[in-house]
Amino acid sequence: MGNDGGVLASTANEDGIAVAREAGFHAILEEHLARLDAPSDLPVVICGMAGSRQGWKECGYLEVPAELDDLWKHVAGVNGLNRPVTILPGISQAPGQSSDVMRGEETKLFGASMEGHGAHTYCIPGQHSKWALMAKSQVQGFRTFMTGEMIDVLSRQTILQHSLEGAAEVEAGDPAFSTGVRDGWLNADKLTSTLFSIRAGDLLEHRSPDENLARLTGLMIGAELAGAEPGSDGVALVASGQLAQLYQSAFATCGIEVRLIDAEIAVQRGLFEVWRALISADNTHARSSRS
Amino acid sequence: MGNDGGVLASTANEDGIAVAREAGFHAILEEHLARLDAPSDLPVVICGMAGSRQGWKECGYLEVPAELDDLWKHVAGVNGLNRPVTILPGISQAPGQSSDVMRGEETKLFGASMEGHGAHTYCIPGQHSKWALMAKSQVQGFRTFMTGEMIDVLSRQTILQHSLEGAAEVEAGDPAFSTGVRDGWLNADKLTSTLFSIRAGDLLEHRSPDENLARLTGLMIGAELAGAEPGSDGVALVASGQLAQLYQSAFATCGIEVRLIDAEIAVQRGLFEVWRALISADNTHARSSRS
Repeated sequence: MGNDGGVLASTANEDGIAVAREAGFHAILEEHLARLDAPSDLPVVICGMAGSRQGWKECGYLEVPAELDDLWKHVAGVNGLNRPVTILPGISQAPGQSSDVMRGEETKLFGASMEGHGAHTYCIPGQHSKWALMAKSQVQGFRTFMTGEMIDVLSRQTILQHSLEGAAEVEAGDPAFSTGVRDGWLNADKLTSTLFSIRAGDLLEHRSPDENLARLTGLMIGAELAGAEPGSDGVALVASGQLAQLYQSAFATCGIEVRLIDAEIAVQRGLFEVWRALISADNTHARSSRS
Repeated sequence: MGNDGGVLASTANEDGIAVAREAGFHAILEEHLARLDAPSDLPVVICGMAGSRQGWKECGYLEVPAELDDLWKHVAGVNGLNRPVTILPGISQAPGQSSDVMRGEETKLFGASMEGHGAHTYCIPGQHSKWALMAKSQVQGFRTFMTGEMIDVLSRQTILQHSLEGAAEVEAGDPAFSTGVRDGWLNADKLTSTLFSIRAGDLLEHRSPDENLARLTGLMIGAELAGAEPGSDGVALVASGQLAQLYQSAFATCGIEVRLIDAEIAVQRGLFEVWRALISADNTHARSSRS
């Protein structure tokens, strides 16, 4: 990114924390940066699982209510490298039943809150979807739904797999998806039963794998929307690509007003704002040291 | 079984339909019977997946409302064997959202209904728990919950596995189980979120694997009880062993009156009654042929 926060070059892959642990976090970082011809002293700011206990350098959690403007005060630095590497903390909610954690999404929330225009409820869909209640840049509370991960294991590891083999990617406009969303939304308290209706529908009515995967995906997203209990003032959806389309369609099916904020832009903006705050604090510190 | 329906000898193992398909259904049957020194012409009555499309001989479904006294009229016979082998049909519910199927549980229901003493709601817990609304021996409707299978995949194939490694079998008296049941019962519409609280609780409060597995099991069973919406006139629980203890404890936690019917005895009784009806019809047929 340039000094104005604009993206100069980018690179990405699907490797998760398991791959990074195996190859070494530093090696993976330098491999990415080499692809961008990045200077060897270019500072790096990281959010997500690199800050977890199994990550590169553990950086704890800010407990809710958490002021995202203060994220920069709680970062961890990785020592002994040529370049400055800064890792952001996650956010936690404790204790008891509503125990919850996030890592990485707090940075998306920070970036998104700058263009949230007064939205109070944010939804960040994914393997573990996060729903946050925000007041300006403060996270007041949040809740995780295991939607994406459960769609994966249900479709690969349970009896439902026989009804889903060879299914193509789900389209947001598929009627089987919308029907699934509606059933999941209206019967969220019967989720593990409506899921079985996919198997029964296949046996009795010979539905196609595409239809069955669309229904499964719809049921899981519909149940998430019901469980999250979005308020009447609409939801800011922080998402990109196919996931953004599916969730926009699901929100429309459930009659919930939604405003899309691009997740890629949100996380870039969050990272940049943390970096700017760190630089500004350094300068202030330098000035006050001189005076 | 003797002519009075009493059990003379029994054998069992955990092999499912995949093993039986591989080894051959006939071979598996004779292997079991050889262990019992059963006569080579002893008749055999079978319920469950042997009657499915992937089974030994397909035997369709009775559609609800299904009179279990009529199960014997819809059996399939396996031809070309020394002994008479009779396979029972399943029950189906169609079409649309509430599509559902059962195979094997209809026989348990049939046996259980003979000692149900007016119970209207039956619960048969398992990998796929079945809840049936009955009027005497007629199944009026039913619903499947994927409780057991989902506990398995959640504990082995998702992020929750890291919080469950090495956990011992869940005890019905474990407070973490009861708390899980209560949370699952009260927040059934947020199931995929309360499940994630197991991971967060582990990270933030370092709970033990035993405690986490008890909570997971409780959440799933509590959500099943809520989704099944049992009426105020109590439930007949058709179960045996550890599963019977867990569900009895869960019903007590949710303040639902429950009457236990042993699942082993119920299925034996159902199989025997079907056999008796077949013999009786044969005799009637023989008599009317003679007259």
